[in-house]
Amino acid sequence: MNFIKTPTKGMRDLLPKDMIMREYVLNVMKEVYAKFGFELIQTPVVEHIENLTSKQGGENEKLIFKIMKRGEKLNEGDLNDPETLVDSGLRYDLTVPLARFYANNYPNLSLPFRAFQMGNVYRAERSQKGRYREFMQCDLDILGEKTNLAEIELINAVITFLSALQFKDFTIRINDRRILTQMVKYAGLPLEQLDSILISLDKLDKIGKEGVMEELQKLDLQKEKIENYLKYFEKDTSSIQSFCEQFDMEKDIVENLETILETVGTIPNAKLVFDPTLVRGMGYYTGPIFEIMVEDVPFAIGGGGRYDQMIEKYTGVSTPACGFSVGFERLCLLLEERGYKISEESEHIAYIIKDEQKLKEIYPKINEERKNKIVKVLIRSKNFKFQKENLENAGYLVVEE
Amino acid sequence: MNFIKTPTKGMRDLLPKDMIMREYVLNVMKEVYAKFGFELIQTPVVEHIENLTSKQGGENEKLIFKIMKRGEKLNEGDLNDPETLVDSGLRYDLTVPLARFYANNYPNLSLPFRAFQMGNVYRAERSQKGRYREFMQCDLDILGEKTNLAEIELINAVITFLSALQFKDFTIRINDRRILTQMVKYAGLPLEQLDSILISLDKLDKIGKEGVMEELQKLDLQKEKIENYLKYFEKDTSSIQSFCEQFDMEKDIVENLETILETVGTIPNAKLVFDPTLVRGMGYYTGPIFEIMVEDVPFAIGGGGRYDQMIEKYTGVSTPACGFSVGFERLCLLLEERGYKISEESEHIAYIIKDEQKLKEIYPKINEERKNKIVKVLIRSKNFKFQKENLENAGYLVVEE
Repeated sequence: MNFIKTPTKGMRDLLPKDMIMREYVLNVMKEVYAKFGFELIQTPVVEHIENLTSKQGGENEKLIFKIMKRGEKLNEGDLNDPETLVDSGLRYDLTVPLARFYANNYPNLSLPFRAFQMGNVYRAERSQKGRYREFMQCDLDILGEKTNLAEIELINAVITFLSALQFKDFTIRINDRRILTQMVKYAGLPLEQLDSILISLDKLDKIGKEGVMEELQKLDLQKEKIENYLKYFEKDTSSIQSFCEQFDMEKDIVENLETILETVGTIPNAKLVFDPTLVRGMGYYTGPIFEIMVEDVPFAIGGGGRYDQMIEKYTGVSTPACGFSVGFERLCLLLEERGYKISEESEHIAYIIKDEQKLKEIYPKINEERKNKIVKVLIRSKNFKFQKENLENAGYLVVEE
Repeated sequence: MNFIKTPTKGMRDLLPKDMIMREYVLNVMKEVYAKFGFELIQTPVVEHIENLTSKQGGENEKLIFKIMKRGEKLNEGDLNDPETLVDSGLRYDLTVPLARFYANNYPNLSLPFRAFQMGNVYRAERSQKGRYREFMQCDLDILGEKTNLAEIELINAVITFLSALQFKDFTIRINDRRILTQMVKYAGLPLEQLDSILISLDKLDKIGKEGVMEELQKLDLQKEKIENYLKYFEKDTSSIQSFCEQFDMEKDIVENLETILETVGTIPNAKLVFDPTLVRGMGYYTGPIFEIMVEDVPFAIGGGGRYDQMIEKYTGVSTPACGFSVGFERLCLLLEERGYKISEESEHIAYIIKDEQKLKEIYPKINEERKNKIVKVLIRSKNFKFQKENLENAGYLVVEE
């Protein structure tokens, strides 16, 4: 038989020790988010191909695992146009399914809807360390709330969750998509090139101001205007208001950000800072955007923002929306690297019996113990010493019966 | 935009109320099974097409959601031979992935390995009520244990789980695949037709003895031998030994079943009965088989058995194995139908504020309350009465601030 032992490319078998960490983190998350009134929902992993290829998913649309039509429908397809062979695919994020879910179910939801999703998503990316083709996303979203109550509650929930995991050294950076736009506009740079400009700005911490300067010049932008633009970033950011005065930012948007910072400031452990260089990749953001950084970790372990126009594009109904997603895989990896210890309450006992006939006799006792202890039963093996050692190393108290 | 609001055919959106029930059942299950030393593992939903089409999966292999090759590899395919376009598919059960997992990871597992899996599986079946194309399976398996310690511990774990859900009216039926075979053989019926004979026997409770008789005659079997065969089933089954004397059953196999019944008999709430008409569909079973029936429910809500040869077929290494799977979807449906109440410990409070500026002021109080209560904040809507009513109906204490 042509049987393949390893998982499919880029995917993983999760061993008991991996699952202990994952379950622990998920349980903490569920407990915290529930206290904020977020409600758990679930959507199928398989999504209509039409929904996945609607151009809202950006680069991810190139990475879809496509599912072939079945039965006679397949015969009508044409290999020269592979799209005709496909009717669905694996979701690449939880945002597209959320939009569909909301459109399908909003009469049965309490609005504004506080959604909590945990689920696997799939991307056929080139394999590389720490990147998987199947990975879990954990998304919080508030749909139908146009005020910054949404941003504040989302940031609060995530801070509370990270604090419950004993994280102390994290900072949330915040910016507003509209500030990014206004800075480009006010500096006299062309808004048609906004995306390219922001892609360069996003590299500021990696390639420095000189590097960004160089990249922007390659875009055929006027040097003087680039200098204007980059000069804004030299100003101290501790006051959003005075920072934003440089480029005549709309007052409402500044105040909105300030309120978010002040309100979040009342939360224990909160460290929220305004960072005008924060870009976040996705083009669908329309307002505040944010990102979680942990000390000595070069990548964000979560992020989100407001996306007031996206749900409408999918559903035709105008729906303000804001989301925050914690990078579950990265978080688990980080906790593991830091040697995070999960306190194990239950005692572990392994009963070793000579043969299965013995079981009947000791079963009442064992089953009583199982009310609060973890109890395994094993048949004594020929190499008892080895058997006992292994169990003891795994934390079991070994009892011979 | 060509956006489809409903889920893909035969799949479901799960609403908050659905998820509350599912999470509750899963948590009870996790807690109980952990106490038996079962270890949670997880495998990818996407499996090698070679592994899915190895002829061990029976009818399920016809129902595979197939994933298309990507990039240049797709161009090498041939539409006249659709298999050439495919490199993987969605798993249709958790047994194939378990075999692969075990082959891939056994040096890192504690043996005998007590595996616990919860995961979605996919079958492109015709849609019908209560049958979904994406559904969760919850499997317990013990790999590497050749004695009936495996059967007993599995049955015990499942009984303890159902009891924790307050089920009282369930019975576990048990039989042995080798008894089914011996009865056919001893009656003089041809073993080549074993599968067809058992398919008819399996309908005994639906079509009665006359119906089975008729079906067996259509198989071109001698009437006298059929009568011999069906006569065995008239005998009282309260003593396995005397029942099995009719067809000269091997003593070891009878004693093995008796030991299982006696040992399980020491467990509170256990109702385990020998039922020689129990068949279980899958051909891969090699020894004891079992099934959970609940009063007034026409279908089994779980089942399993010993499959000592299957892992070897996949992996080349002889590995005794026994599994028990609870039908998670059916169980949730049943609990819902019976109006099962989940005790909700946390108080629910909804603060309604005039505008988002108010949040800052009440945030310290709210966040303190969130340590043990579920607290939502909402902006006062124009139709406040309606807003308040909705929240109260959802169990929230409404506070105006």
